[in-house]
Amino acid sequence: VCELEGRRIITLLTDFGTEDMYVPVMKGVILTLNPNVEIIDLSHDVPKFNVQHAAFLLAQAVSYFPEGTVHVAVVDPSVGTTRRPIIVKTKRSLLVGPDNGILYLAVRKEGFESAVTIENESYMLPGRSKTFDGRDVFSPASAYLTMGKALESFGLNIKEIEKPPFTQPIVSGKNLVCEVLYIDGFGNVVTNAEGNLIQKIGLKEKSSIKMKTRRKTLRLKFHLTYGDADRGSFLALVGSHGFFEVAVNQGNAADKLKVKVGERISFSLK
Amino acid sequence: VCELEGRRIITLLTDFGTEDMYVPVMKGVILTLNPNVEIIDLSHDVPKFNVQHAAFLLAQAVSYFPEGTVHVAVVDPSVGTTRRPIIVKTKRSLLVGPDNGILYLAVRKEGFESAVTIENESYMLPGRSKTFDGRDVFSPASAYLTMGKALESFGLNIKEIEKPPFTQPIVSGKNLVCEVLYIDGFGNVVTNAEGNLIQKIGLKEKSSIKMKTRRKTLRLKFHLTYGDADRGSFLALVGSHGFFEVAVNQGNAADKLKVKVGERISFSLK
Amino acid sequence: VCELEGRRIITLLTDFGTEDMYVPVMKGVILTLNPNVEIIDLSHDVPKFNVQHAAFLLAQAVSYFPEGTVHVAVVDPSVGTTRRPIIVKTKRSLLVGPDNGILYLAVRKEGFESAVTIENESYMLPGRSKTFDGRDVFSPASAYLTMGKALESFGLNIKEIEKPPFTQPIVSGKNLVCEVLYIDGFGNVVTNAEGNLIQKIGLKEKSSIKMKTRRKTLRLKFHLTYGDADRGSFLALVGSHGFFEVAVNQGNAADKLKVKVGERISFSLK
Repeated sequence: VCELEGRRIITLLTDFGTEDMYVPVMKGVILTLNPNVEIIDLSHDVPKFNVQHAAFLLAQAVSYFPEGTVHVAVVDPSVGTTRRPIIVKTKRSLLVGPDNGILYLAVRKEGFESAVTIENESYMLPGRSKTFDGRDVFSPASAYLTMGKALESFGLNIKEIEKPPFTQPIVSGKNLVCEVLYIDGFGNVVTNAEGNLIQKIGLKEKSSIKMKTRRKTLRLKFHLTYGDADRGSFLALVGSHGFFEVAVNQGNAADKLKVKVGERISFSLK
Repeated sequence: VCELEGRRIITLLTDFGTEDMYVPVMKGVILTLNPNVEIIDLSHDVPKFNVQHAAFLLAQAVSYFPEGTVHVAVVDPSVGTTRRPIIVKTKRSLLVGPDNGILYLAVRKEGFESAVTIENESYMLPGRSKTFDGRDVFSPASAYLTMGKALESFGLNIKEIEKPPFTQPIVSGKNLVCEVLYIDGFGNVVTNAEGNLIQKIGLKEKSSIKMKTRRKTLRLKFHLTYGDADRGSFLALVGSHGFFEVAVNQGNAADKLKVKVGERISFSLK
Repeated sequence: VCELEGRRIITLLTDFGTEDMYVPVMKGVILTLNPNVEIIDLSHDVPKFNVQHAAFLLAQAVSYFPEGTVHVAVVDPSVGTTRRPIIVKTKRSLLVGPDNGILYLAVRKEGFESAVTIENESYMLPGRSKTFDGRDVFSPASAYLTMGKALESFGLNIKEIEKPPFTQPIVSGKNLVCEVLYIDGFGNVVTNAEGNLIQKIGLKEKSSIKMKTRRKTLRLKFHLTYGDADRGSFLALVGSHGFFEVAVNQGNAADKLKVKVGERISFSLK
């Protein structure tokens, strides 16, 4: 009998679906390099090419995995262009993917430590194609990371990584016009307004704010956490992902508002 | 080189789907506590909130897994209420889930040994939410079970567990009115009439019985096993799950009868 | 701390879907016999009974897995008849499944070494049913293979395995009428014409050929590899699977041609 100390885990998040061989081929590449790694699927049903959706999913999952987990995220509409393949080391884990914003929210949640580009061809599959870095670059990189290869050996140090392609909200005076960026599994409505914008329009704890969607106008309070609102009541807050969000304490805000991703919401403080 | 004796297995059965992070988050919680456990998905495509469907699926799978496997089943429409989280020890395995009937058929198949409620908060995720016991209670409980924690350390001993929310069939004289509870993968039509009711209406081996569905009326024989009927013939029997069932030997009864879950079927013996 | 040298991998490819317990039951059977094996899903979403589709998927995946991997492929419309369960040893791996052609393309890709029928009942589940060889025959066989059982102990040596049920193309003079057999994930249009037929109509490198589909007629060149055509241009070639194929270099031929599986395409060289 033996104990496996620290079996390494690699997670996979893609928009490749489960009908084709893309995902199993990535797993085969990883297991050929390191047969003792454990591979866990986050999801392969990300809406095709939706980088920001994947960024939110990844940020929801990372902190529940063991320290040292390697997370591979591949939603990569620009594969084959000049966008860089990167590895980011956070305070808890290693994140691997294209530098198109997919890693951004997870990195912000866990705390950035360092990052490198993946350029060392000896860590890539021979005959790298232009269309499948998931197989040729990201899978082998993740396997080599679990085998203890140093970050510096992959490529050049970089100081910043890209943000997801969020549209920019508009602030004018005490008004904020933004968009629904993501609806999480609890029905919380995440907007494209980052937390610091909220201060610009003067919002403070317990401020009352008027919200207007295509279908509804209502007044709600800005709180620090869900539990500060009455059960079943609407509230606004800055979520753990750093974005301004509309929620219902112990309820489903998206269902009640009937809003969808991409829909406009405006807020005014007065 | 080393041999892993008795690597422990945890299976997961939920209605969470594969698009959101609920299932991978459960896996992350388990692997953080015990990185050497093997996690196998039974299914995450149970129809939402359909406890009885999940109960049938679980009962079909458990006996094919190694002794000592921990099965976690979470279809949990009453999460956050007073329904109890429980662990049941059978003669072969450990079953973890809400006490809403989801474990009932699997326990009956494998043989009840003992059961406890899960109340020990040191075995739960800190800051347990009201909406996600799969993550906060059931996943850590399953991990601690694979780490050898004693059943008594989780909570209070209980003598009985809940049945799934089956509607009750009606017996009058030699007549039985029941409902389709479940259609298995072979097209066998399982009703909500438990085996003992069959004796009440006087059915014995080789008795002839008249069956009436919305579309069809036909006469069939009651047998002890599928193979007792001619190939391609209808028969009635009490299945391994303990319920009265209509089948076609080596055929698909549900397709031939065009019946659906919830549809009424009446039987009369005369 | 210990190192696992050569943990064995079993992959599964089926048309069983992920809603029923067929796939997890296969996994339970495998893990009961060999709890230390790693099971990887190729896909369970093969179109029902589509043996040739599964054959293409399998051939795409096998070479990315470690040497010694056991691949189990079960799309088995003739289960319960006289079609033989077989094991094929290639130069890299072991393939297990019904002898209905599902293994053919993967075997051709990796190189045939030897093959046996599975007849030894001590390697099957007791009480083998007529309807589920995936559980009763193929899963235990794959587990016993990872436990080092010799190929000869399973059954009789066979020299040839079946081809998938491909329809036959028609050759007359310099004309070839064929069908779309498969469209791969890159949109390459694979026909049912094997490479040697191409020589029969006199096609050589850089020959110009006229192609006619239901919607389009166009002229393209026969090349040895995708990169020989200009970026975005149509070309014809014999793919790594050994079949005549129409592609667009770095593009999606199926989308541009709007062709579907089963559709007729004719080629004429003149």
